[in-house]
Order: sequence, then structure tokens, then C-alpha cells
Amino acid sequence: MAFKIGLLGFGTVGSGTVQILQNPTLRHPLLHDITLHRVGVRSLDKPRPIELAPDLLTTDLEAIVTDPEVDVVVELIGGLEPARSLILKAIAHKKHVVTANKAVIARYSDEIFDAANAAGVYVMIEAAVAGGIPVIQPLRQALSVNRLHRVTGIINGTTNYILTRMQREGADFTDVLADAQALGYAEADPTADVDGLDAADKIAILAALAFGGRVNLTEVYCEGIRNVTASDIAYAEDLGFVIKLLATAQRDIPDDAAPGTTDRLQVRVHPTLLPKDHPLASVNDVFNAVLIEGDPIGQVMFFGPGAGMGPTASAVVSDIQTIAAALKSAAAAPTSLNPLMACIHEHYCTITPMEDLVTRFYARLLSKDQPGVIGKIGTCFGNHDVSLESIVQIDSHQDLAEIVVVTHNVREGNFRQALDEMRHFEAVSEIPSTLRVL
Amino acid sequence: MAFKIGLLGFGTVGSGTVQILQNPTLRHPLLHDITLHRVGVRSLDKPRPIELAPDLLTTDLEAIVTDPEVDVVVELIGGLEPARSLILKAIAHKKHVVTANKAVIARYSDEIFDAANAAGVYVMIEAAVAGGIPVIQPLRQALSVNRLHRVTGIINGTTNYILTRMQREGADFTDVLADAQALGYAEADPTADVDGLDAADKIAILAALAFGGRVNLTEVYCEGIRNVTASDIAYAEDLGFVIKLLATAQRDIPDDAAPGTTDRLQVRVHPTLLPKDHPLASVNDVFNAVLIEGDPIGQVMFFGPGAGMGPTASAVVSDIQTIAAALKSAAAAPTSLNPLMACIHEHYCTITPMEDLVTRFYARLLSKDQPGVIGKIGTCFGNHDVSLESIVQIDSHQDLAEIVVVTHNVREGNFRQALDEMRHFEAVSEIPSTLRVL
Repeated sequence: MAFKIGLLGFGTVGSGTVQILQNPTLRHPLLHDITLHRVGVRSLDKPRPIELAPDLLTTDLEAIVTDPEVDVVVELIGGLEPARSLILKAIAHKKHVVTANKAVIARYSDEIFDAANAAGVYVMIEAAVAGGIPVIQPLRQALSVNRLHRVTGIINGTTNYILTRMQREGADFTDVLADAQALGYAEADPTADVDGLDAADKIAILAALAFGGRVNLTEVYCEGIRNVTASDIAYAEDLGFVIKLLATAQRDIPDDAAPGTTDRLQVRVHPTLLPKDHPLASVNDVFNAVLIEGDPIGQVMFFGPGAGMGPTASAVVSDIQTIAAALKSAAAAPTSLNPLMACIHEHYCTITPMEDLVTRFYARLLSKDQPGVIGKIGTCFGNHDVSLESIVQIDSHQDLAEIVVVTHNVREGNFRQALDEMRHFEAVSEIPSTLRVL
Repeated sequence: MAFKIGLLGFGTVGSGTVQILQNPTLRHPLLHDITLHRVGVRSLDKPRPIELAPDLLTTDLEAIVTDPEVDVVVELIGGLEPARSLILKAIAHKKHVVTANKAVIARYSDEIFDAANAAGVYVMIEAAVAGGIPVIQPLRQALSVNRLHRVTGIINGTTNYILTRMQREGADFTDVLADAQALGYAEADPTADVDGLDAADKIAILAALAFGGRVNLTEVYCEGIRNVTASDIAYAEDLGFVIKLLATAQRDIPDDAAPGTTDRLQVRVHPTLLPKDHPLASVNDVFNAVLIEGDPIGQVMFFGPGAGMGPTASAVVSDIQTIAAALKSAAAAPTSLNPLMACIHEHYCTITPMEDLVTRFYARLLSKDQPGVIGKIGTCFGNHDVSLESIVQIDSHQDLAEIVVVTHNVREGNFRQALDEMRHFEAVSEIPSTLRVL
């Protein structure tokens, strides 16, 4: 019984996928049953690092997703269109789909999974989040017997690389970004990475899997790392923290929630001060990690390469293999999909507004170096129910003092109101940084 | 479609398992289809923390594994017998089996998996290694598309707790062990943990899964932590290392191997000096972690609680759920087992003798404080092809000097021969420590 793959896209991850499929020795024996049937490319003439029989290649991607011989369509072209349409057409033609396309899944999971469930096919997305780290399958399967509380990830390698170098070198964001671009760790247009959009796509996907409901991507709070300064990193270090871009999805059942409220979530991406002994604090450079917390498991963390040809291809081929295994063990016409591989939830989760988030904050204020400023600031926070853990006047440069504040757990809305009020203080000239603290 | 569980054993992990099964809300909806049918216990009168309908309980374990209504037998009684016989009888009666019993699986996997394959049933063992951390399923499935090179684990919580406290407190093994026993982190008879036997069972299981061949437990090299001293930990720290009890399984294809040799393995448990920046070096206290290396994935690490009621029960129930999902998606009579869930390899791997291991070594020697000793030691190592990275005379106590040696990568047999020769040197009074270095 051979499973025929129709591959869309033959770039980096596509090449890595073909390399695994063409060299099954010393891998799982099931890979011998998987054959590459068609490979869709933009141009037939482009020189490629991997030799393929010329009759495998085609520029007609539509022909692949409708080819009666193809069992599994592997979508690796990226971007929104034509990827979305090709995935939907493949599903309509009863093909199982494997995709690494986080952007499409984060935006169109509803129509894609509805179509897949109606057609009785699998759509597998292990490669869409955290590259080679198996995290989608454990979330869906092994960990899904838990009541999950929170998923916290460092799931964008570029920003983690930049923050790690800023930390090590005391360097500024713009300098490290330029260097990362020169080294190929950041794109020429770095927006998707440094503004947190890539991480937002991924945490929306993880949130849906962890908490069994769909997430509207436009409701995911997203704040990047452009405003993290070398001095914030240095102050954080003095206070016992490192700064990481964390993506968090958390079940959020407020005390006054209606009985039965279970699908209210926080889903957010923002730079965060992390205690140095936190398991995610030592995840550096381009590495990714995902920490999953639940009952009764406690904490489990998955760590590894979040991108790159080999790791991502490993995830892609593992999804192909998982489909092949499921089909092999099912009867000729399976009665129903494996419920741990299908995506069964259909309702949207309610996302908590950021002003209702309860968290600690770090803030850095520039103030005129005059007596009573700390008192005024402390009083203002107190008036808004913001309890302070520490407030330190660090040093003066020019005639301004730098005041670093760390709060206890406070409601974000209250904290913002206090800051808005302080901005009108004659003694406060600027509030350059506010960051959340884990 | 309901799946009926026959549970053998109602101790700590059994209670955790029942707690999850009885409270399915906010967990995967598939758990609603799983019902507890019978619970086998030693005594009906013992007071228990969890209420069960009295007609669920029985002392007749045989009746459970032969009960026509039971779909899945969950073996949580531990120990070798009657666990092994009950598992085999359950299989003979076409029950799927979930077990947390690493001792039985490490010793009897051949007859158990042969019987399971013949009967067409699953035997699932996620809870047998690393408690709640999903590592068996990722090894079998997501990571099995890689050519795996090495699996390295901190998979015994007791020894990791003891070594962590020795490191932090500068304390001696016997003192920390006594305290760990008082606190319940170590058993009254600590042999299985501190002599590495528990870790050996687990790495034998992981090796078989990672490298697709069976492993004869008696061939697993096993050295515990009784001889690790506070001074070794202190010297290691000065040299940039921490000492951990590592369990390692590694594909080992020597340069002179016959063509086609693929299933020669190193499988070993011993205390190891680990560079402080190694991902496993910061795994402390009772936590477990497993680092998996392969091509093309690179390195992936799984971290979490390696034991305890909740985490282990999470693994047990996830195995039950995985079986239920596979059965649900198969036709009434599945044509064959899912090849990613079955255990398909039948040959035994060849285990490399320890003298052929190539590794770095740390050694601590006590010598008479006389000129020329370092020269004699260095020459002796050189004569046996043991190249040194450093040799340091640390201090004298009484009239003895302490000499700490770190080698480059050397053949273990050569290193041992050199030490045997040195033991006859008049100037060398003792060689209290030799430890491998990663």
C-alpha cells in the first residue's frame, strides 16, 4: 500500500521534505510506503539543489490538488493565496493535507477544518508552529487529557535571536536588527517577526488546540520588540529578569463569570520580563520553546529548533507519516476520522480584553530630578489600585532622573489609567517603557 | 461507543487515573466515551481517598483481564509478578494494555509485544518513562522520520534531586540521601534509584523505540551515584561542569564496521560531567528531561515532571485515549494495527562493550606529594594513547596531593588500562573517582 504525495512548493522546506522521503534508510520503515508523486513549482528551469525525475515537476498546481492518484497534498508555498484556495480545492477532492502555513491556518482555520471534516480528510499542521519541535501532536493528544491552564511560548526565532544578542552585548535593537538582517536571521522587511505578527499567528493556533475553541486572530493582542531598549534589558537584569517575546494563551475564568463559562481566554504576544530561573528564561538565540501548564500534569516544556530546512521538514514528514499510519490501520473506507487528529471544535472563544488582564508591570519613567516625585508617582498608582513591589530612582542623566517601577499583580486598565494621569504631571517628562512581568 | 477500562491497582497512580476519568469536564471530549468498568485491588476494606461504587472493586484481578466487557486493561500494580502474567493474559484475551511498569517492559518486552502483535492489540507505555512528559509517542511518531543519533535523559528524579542538593549545598551523598529518605523523595531501600537500575530500565525502553531494535537489559551498563563525592562536584564546578546521572542510548557505527551495520548501540547509565551550558545541565531537583538528537531535526528536548500521581496519571490516561481514538476511527474490525502505535521490531541490537566507548574522562587521584608525579602520570596516560586536556594538582591534605585529570576523547579500555597501571605506582595511593565527561 503506497501513499502518493503531491508537493506544492520546492523551496527550502520542500527540499528538506524531499530529502527525507528519498532517503528512508534508518528512519521509520513506514516511510518506504510513501512516494513522491508530483512536485508543483513556479518555474521548471530554476536550478535546484536536489535532483528530481523531470516528469515529477509541474507548474500546474491545480492539476496536483485534483490528481486522482494523489493521497496527500503537502502545501509549502506559503503566503495566503493561492495557498488557501489550493488547500480548499485539495480537500474538496478528498485529499488529506499537510501544511506548514501558519498564516493561512491562523486566518482560515474555520473554513479549512469545516471543509476537512465534511470531506472526511485530515489537515495536519505540526510544521506551522515551532518548526521541528513536536508540539501540535502532544497538545492534541498526550496533553489533552489535562485541564490546560496556560500555553506560553518563545515561538519566533528572529526576535529571540535579537533579544539574546541585545542581552549579551548590551546593544540596541536597531544595531542588532541590522546585523541579524546581514546574517540572514531577519528578513529585509522584518515586520512580521519584530512586531510579533508571526508569533500571534502561532499562538492563535496553539490556543485553539489547547482550549478547544476557535480564536479570532484580530482579537489577539500583539506588541513587538521595537521599543525594548538596551537600558530596559539592563534594568531588568539588575532586578533578576530577562526580557523575552512571549506568546501566551491562558484560560481566563474571572471570579464573577457566569456559571459554565469555560471558553474565555487571554491570547497575547508581548515582550515580558521573565524571572531568570523560569524554564523559558534560558531559551536563547534562534531556539524556540513551548511551556504547557495544566492539571494534573503541572509544567511540561518542549525545546528545540523553531525553524530551518531540516527541522521543519521533519515536522512535515511526520505529519505525512501519521496520516499514512492512520489510513493503513483503518479499513478501506474508514468510518470516521481519528478524533485526536481531526479538528472538532466549531465555536469561537471569547477573548479577554487587555484592560482586564491581571499582571505585574515594569515601567521606566523620566522625571525632573526634584523632591517629592517618587511620592507623587506612588500616590497616583495607589489611587488607581496599583500596588507597587519596588520603585527605584536609578540615576540622573542631564537634569532628568530615571525611575524604574515594578508593580504587584494589577489590572492592566488601572495601570494604564494611572500612567495616563502621570503623563500630565509637570515633573514627569516621558514614560519610555512599560513591559509586563511574569 | 464506550470504551471500558479494567484497572489493576488503585494506589497513587491508579487514584490519579480515576480522578481524571471521573472528571472529564474541560478535558478532551473523547474522555466522555471512556468508562471505568472494574478496579482490581488487594483488599476491599482499605480506606481510600477516592469514592468508588463498591461493585467496581474486586480482588480478583484474573477476572478483570478475562472479562469479555473490558476493552483496555490498565496495569498499575508494578513489580514483575503478577504484573507480567496479568498483562500476557489480558493480551491473550484480546485486551489492549496500558502500563506504567518500566521494570516489566524493560525485561519482557519481547514476549509482551510479540503476543500483542499476534493478538492484534496495542500495548502502550507512555507512563513507563519520564512520568507525564510525552516522550514515548514523539519518539515513535513525530521524531521517527529522523535518523536518530542519540537519546540522552535525566530520567530518575531521586538521583537528580540528590545531585542537585549536593551541588547547591556542598553536601555529601550519604547526608543528602538520608534527608531525601526522610522527605519521601527516596525509598527506604534506595538501590533501584541511586544505583541507576531504574534509569537503566527506562533507557533500555527508549533505546528500543529510538533505534528500532530490542535491547537486552543485562547488556546495559549501569553505574549509580553512590561514589560521587562533594569534592568531585566542587572540582567539576571549577572546571565548568555539573554532574548529572545521564542515561544515554546512541547509535554507534564504528569506522571498521561491516557495511550495513546499523543496529549497534551504546546504552549506558552513569554519572557524567556536563558542560554548564548544555540543555540538560539546568534540569534540577526531581525534574526529568530527555534530549533527542537526529538528522535533520538537530536537538529537541522534553522537560517536565518525571514522576508523581498527577503527571503519571496524565500519561496513563493519554494512552487510554489514544487507543480509544484509534479504535473509533477504525472499522468495526480493524484490518491491522496503527504502525506508529505498535511495536514492530523483533531483532536484538548489538550493544557496544564499554571498553570501546570513546569519551572524555575526569579522574581524581590521591598521590604522595613528591616531585615528578604529574610527569609519571602524564607519561603513563600517553603510553596508553590517552591524550590529556588538563592535569591539575589541587591541594595537599595530610601528606597527600589531589590530582585532577580531564582527558580528551579516548577509548575507555585504554583509559582503564592506564589507571590499572598507575594503581601500582608507589606515588599513587588511591584513585577515588573516575567519571565520564560529555
